[in-house]
Formats: sequence, structure tokens, C-alpha cells
Amino acid sequence: MIDDTPQTSPLAPDAFPAMSSVDGVRMAAAQCNVRYVNKTDVMLAVMEPGTTAAGVFTQSKTAAAPVDWCRDMLKGGNYQDGTIKALIVNSGNANAFTGRAGIAAVEKMAAATAEAAGCRQEDVFIAQTGVIGEPIEVDKITASLPGLKADLGSNWENAAQAIMTTDTYPKGASATADIGGTKVTIAGIAKGSGMIAPDMATMLAFVFTDAALPREVLQNLLADSADKSFNAITVDSDTSTSDTVLAFATGRVENPEIAFYDDRALQDFRAKFDGVMTDLAHQIVRDGEGAKKFITIKITGAEDDGAAKKIGMTIANSPLVKTAIAGEDANWGRVVMAVGKSGEKADRDKLTIAMGGITIAELGQIADGYDEAPVAQHMKGQNIDIAVDVGISAGKATVWTCDLTHDYISINADYRT
Amino acid sequence: MIDDTPQTSPLAPDAFPAMSSVDGVRMAAAQCNVRYVNKTDVMLAVMEPGTTAAGVFTQSKTAAAPVDWCRDMLKGGNYQDGTIKALIVNSGNANAFTGRAGIAAVEKMAAATAEAAGCRQEDVFIAQTGVIGEPIEVDKITASLPGLKADLGSNWENAAQAIMTTDTYPKGASATADIGGTKVTIAGIAKGSGMIAPDMATMLAFVFTDAALPREVLQNLLADSADKSFNAITVDSDTSTSDTVLAFATGRVENPEIAFYDDRALQDFRAKFDGVMTDLAHQIVRDGEGAKKFITIKITGAEDDGAAKKIGMTIANSPLVKTAIAGEDANWGRVVMAVGKSGEKADRDKLTIAMGGITIAELGQIADGYDEAPVAQHMKGQNIDIAVDVGISAGKATVWTCDLTHDYISINADYRT
Repeated sequence: MIDDTPQTSPLAPDAFPAMSSVDGVRMAAAQCNVRYVNKTDVMLAVMEPGTTAAGVFTQSKTAAAPVDWCRDMLKGGNYQDGTIKALIVNSGNANAFTGRAGIAAVEKMAAATAEAAGCRQEDVFIAQTGVIGEPIEVDKITASLPGLKADLGSNWENAAQAIMTTDTYPKGASATADIGGTKVTIAGIAKGSGMIAPDMATMLAFVFTDAALPREVLQNLLADSADKSFNAITVDSDTSTSDTVLAFATGRVENPEIAFYDDRALQDFRAKFDGVMTDLAHQIVRDGEGAKKFITIKITGAEDDGAAKKIGMTIANSPLVKTAIAGEDANWGRVVMAVGKSGEKADRDKLTIAMGGITIAELGQIADGYDEAPVAQHMKGQNIDIAVDVGISAGKATVWTCDLTHDYISINADYRT
Repeated sequence: MIDDTPQTSPLAPDAFPAMSSVDGVRMAAAQCNVRYVNKTDVMLAVMEPGTTAAGVFTQSKTAAAPVDWCRDMLKGGNYQDGTIKALIVNSGNANAFTGRAGIAAVEKMAAATAEAAGCRQEDVFIAQTGVIGEPIEVDKITASLPGLKADLGSNWENAAQAIMTTDTYPKGASATADIGGTKVTIAGIAKGSGMIAPDMATMLAFVFTDAALPREVLQNLLADSADKSFNAITVDSDTSTSDTVLAFATGRVENPEIAFYDDRALQDFRAKFDGVMTDLAHQIVRDGEGAKKFITIKITGAEDDGAAKKIGMTIANSPLVKTAIAGEDANWGRVVMAVGKSGEKADRDKLTIAMGGITIAELGQIADGYDEAPVAQHMKGQNIDIAVDVGISAGKATVWTCDLTHDYISINADYRT
């Protein structure tokens, strides 16, 4: 049922974007055959002295060993600003649910990467994605380090390709920003969800800047931005044990000093950083398993922003909403159902629902003189817009998802046939 | 893609069960063509003087008008024990999201049913299921009342058929129980989820007994039992605006007086009542859209029973778990993922996962000498058992679901083609 050759998603961009280089960041990719035999599967990035780091991770209660490692690096007493930082990522084996051996593998990767990058083990960040529950042949990864070190350069696309699992295209985004009159650069790569037996979908993203930013500022920036980007997307509601988003600021560009997250001088940078993060998040949704349509869900009028996001994600995760959109039907009844299911404050008789900018239902019933024809036309397109006004207060949020199609079932049920 | 003639679910029972009659309950079904033209679509039940009533309803924040009506009947100051009670149910139009006209329709149904049954309007319970957002032709329903009244009898199967929407078979269950040496009878009917554009899946169940039970006892019994039955099943995680479970006790059998819910004399009755409720709940899952496999998920060792149920329902609602089972793959990695996603306390290195009674993973990694062959055999069957021991404490729960198949997508996405 499923073609062995992955088809590029119909929602994929035409090409990998032209990326800005980020001063102080060098990277390389290699093929070490941890699992794949036909693609690069390991990526090393080395950030020069002066670098600060930040991270956000899966909320899973059964997180994988490399997630625990990174969290400890950032939260533990061993973190230092200003040292060389290194990032090692492999695809094909997530080193998840591998017991003590998995922890030992992470420690071995940290030691070997530290030696190659000339940094402390506590400055090595690790992410792993792929099959779970299988012992990882860590020597294959560490053996690739001398070659990776020799190849360090600035090829973002190679790096983005090496971290792919069943992604159908590499994902990257970059921007320039202004901090108090100084131009700085932001660039990031990501991988999305995809699954082959018994692989697990994992979302990884790494964002780099040459700006000089204290660790606390970078961490706040990243956490805040992740809430509006990677935490506002869903393919099928399932949560990986390995989701990892890391940010590194090399400080190679001497922008005016930023001491506080809410510094006005950071306004443009924050917007551009959010833009890169959101762009990467959208690319992940567009590569969702079986996705044929990219769906934007805007909620207004909720009790507060948190309630709006909960309502949005409940709509985005509803199999009935997602299948209706796959079927190109403007099934507003299923949207009402999802709003009610969210558990957030709502009033049946104050709800307004629009699709493609056209109001379908308002004040608790179908809109007077509603004409389905233009909405039906909108539903045939690749980009679907749903807007819900809850009519209660001023809370708002935007979330993104994709439709639920036969291909999703084929990819996730028929993978053994 | 979807055959217009609904196929009976492969998980359906061979026949409608032989049902006990319940003294003091009479019912009838008719065809009033609210929407369907080829099946009965209205059901009336009349309970003799002495009847007490109880109900549990959808948690949806956008509940439909008949749900609001029933809730008001039970919670408002108008409820009386011991009066005649009536239940009117129609299928084909849920009278949901129909604004003020919907409320007026419910009031009209209550008035007409009260007249037919010879009871107060406040003793009429109403449930409606089917298309939402469309005005209901309530006169068709009220016009059928004289005929329904004339036909009152004890044909449970006719009643169960009249409340079906896209269910592929009628659902009933009954039992006898002992209360302090007196034999009493319990019987119930239900309808499950099914969907045709733009219908909404709705779960309805009505359980009747000839026992004499105070309203508070019946309400506690019903709420408690619903938690272990209808609230422990899921087809696709979506929640209808109209879900309704009602219980009526006619008091026609003079069992010893029961004043408290935890009365020892109620022990056997409680078990049999739970049995009827759980049987009906299982029949709904077995008729889930596209279901090919009935899945039982037992959680032990969780922090408490609530945590166990949350973990169980997270597994049961995971599209990745459900598609893997559709593909007959014992994908324990996806079960680990779902445990982690539940948000409940778990420790990766203490988890044990079994399928078909065979331990696959324990203490955070794949079991020593795990042989996939017998598990693979189990996965080919119609009844799939998953057991997860969280290894934290003594909380336990059992939940039930079905697999996620191509037919689910066909039913819910391709309904317009």
C-alpha cells in the first residue's frame, strides 16, 4: 500500500532556502550508518568561544537519555557561559528506552565530541532521533568525529539533511535582525515527524545567532518563541520522547549589551527570531504524514490566551475536523464539537465560525443567508483557514495543523506490508 | 470509496440479546421521518408512578438543548420522586446549535409528551441525536405521540433500533440482580458513534430497573458506573454535544429499602448494573467507525486510579497506537510514547508493557529473550490486550477502544463523494 520511495510532500517548498551564515558557527554532516545506508545521518556543529546556549524539551514523562543529558547541561551547576559549545545529532536511532546502556552511549558521545571540538563534556549538546528500544552502536557515531571535524563549514542544507528521518525534505530558515543599530544573523534547521516501524516521530530544531545574548535572555526568548511556534503545531497530537529545540548565540557580533529579555532594543530581534522558529514549525506541519492541506486555526474572544490555545489545539487535534478537511468539507458542526470538547469556557449561543474568511455560523446558529459555494471553493485549496470567535473575552491564539488522510493510515498502519 | 449500504461491523455480536422485561416500563418506536425515510426514528418510554430518575451528560461546553433540558430537570427544583416519568428520543436531527428555535422545540416536545404520558412536563426526559445545525421539524415528532402511546409494550430491540443513527446494529443488555433476597431486573439500550455529513457522533444509553431505589442512590450508582464504562471508552477522542445516559428505577419490585449508596445489600445490584453498562459501552466500541479490532488496555502500578485512567485513555486515543494495531504490529514504542504524553507520573526505567499476555518490555528496555512470534499471532486476532504496569504505585484502570483504519478515514472524509 505504501510506496517504498517517499514522495515529497505536496505542501513542500520549491527548494531549500538561501541561508545566511552565522559568524562563529561551523557545521558538517557525514554518513555513519547507524541505521540508514543511503543517507547522511550524523551532524556536528561547533560554536566558538563566547557562546551561550538555551533549550526547550519534550514534556514527555518518558523522555529519552539525550534529552535528560541536555536538560542536565542547562539546568545543572556545570553550565558555563562563554565556552566553546558543540552539538552532535544523529538520525536513525533515538537511543530511547535503551536503559543503562543508553545513558552510557550518551556519555561516550559527549566525551568523544568534547575531544573533537576542544571543549568540556559539559558543553556538548546531544540529540538523537529514529528507532526506539534498540541498542545504539555508538562507536559508529564517535568514529565519524574526526571526519566531521575536518569538514566543518557552513553548509546548512547538508546539516538539515543529516538530521532527517522520514522527513520528505530538509528544513531551514534564516533572517537578519537589528539590535540597537547592529545587524545580526539568525539561522535554524529542523526535522519533523515521520515514522517507520517502530520509529517514533520526533521534532528537532536548532537555531543559531551571532548576536551577543546572555543565557537568561536567550532562554526566555526561546521558551516564549517555542510557545508560539513549535508548541502551536500538531500533526496527530502524539508527543515524542525526544523533542528538542536548542538555541546558541555565539556573541561574535558586538551588539549593544542586552541585560533583560524585555529590553526594547531586542524588539526586532525577537520578531525575526519568532519568524525563523515559526517558519521551521510550519515546514514541519507541511511535511506531516500524509498531509495534503496546511490548516491555520485562529481563535479570538476566548477567556484568555491560554484558553484560546487550548481551544485551537483541540480543533487541530480532532480526527473528525481533520478528516472533514481531508474530504474538503466545511463541516462547522465538527468545529463546534471540538470547541465544546476543549473544556474551556464557551457559550454555544455566542460562537462565530468562519472558514476562508466567510462567516458560516454566528450567535449559535448557521449564519443568515449562508452560501456554501465560496467556502466549498476555499476547501479545495491547499491552505485552509478556520477562524473561531468564542465571544467570551479577549483571549487569542493561532495554531497550525494538517489534514488526516488515507496516506496517514498507510504510513502508520501499513508500514509492515 | 464508501459503500452506501452500511456494512455491519465485523466486531458485531451475532444477534440482539434476549432481554428481560422490566416491570413498570413500557416503550414503543415509530417512524416520523425527521430525517430518515427508511427506518424508525422516534422512541417513547413511559415509566409508571413510583419511578426515580438519574442522568449523566456530555462534558461539552457547547451542549445541545435537550441536554440542557434534562440537566435542568434533574438539578432544578422541579424534580419529584414517585411521579410517572417519560422519555422521548429521536434520531436523525440532534437539535444542536439551533439557537432559540431549538429550545422552543424541546419545550414543545416536553409538553406534547407529558400530555401523551399523563405526566408533568418536568417529568419528561428528552434525547436527540443526528445532524446538527439544522432546524428540527418538531411537529413530525409530536404527531407520532398518539401512535407511540397506543403501541406501548416491551420490545427493546425496536426501541434500540429507533435511536440508531449510523450504528450498524442495535445495542441492548440486561441482567437480574438480588437486593436483600429480592430479585430485580435491569435492562438497557444504547446507540454509539457513527457519522454522516454533517452528522455528529453521539452516545446515548438508557438503563431501566424495576428495583426501588431513592434518586440519590440511583444517581451515585449511575455516575460511578459511567466512569467505569461509558467514560472509559473512546473511538476517536471526540466528544459529542449530546451524550446522554439516563437511568430509571420504577420501584415496582418491593426490595428491602436502600437508603445509602454503599449499602451492602446493593452489592450484587451494583455489580450487575455495572455489567449492563459495560456491556453496552463495549458494544459501542465494537461499532466504532471502521473498527476491525476491539482493544482492552489495562493499566496497573500508576500513582492512583485517576492517573491510571488518564494513561489508559492517552494510549487509547493515540493515533499512532491505533494505526499500529490496525497494521497488526506490536509497536510497544508507541505505547511508551503515549504513557509519556499522558502527563501522569511515570519512570521510563520502571515501565513494563505486555501484549496478549506476553511481556515485551520491562524495566525500561526490551525484555530479555523477547520472542515476537506469539505476540504477532495475538495481533492478528480481533481482540487485542495491552497491559502496562507503570511501576510507581497501586493505581489501576481498564479502558477500551478500537483501531484506526482506512475505513475510519473513508467514513469521515469521503462521505461527500
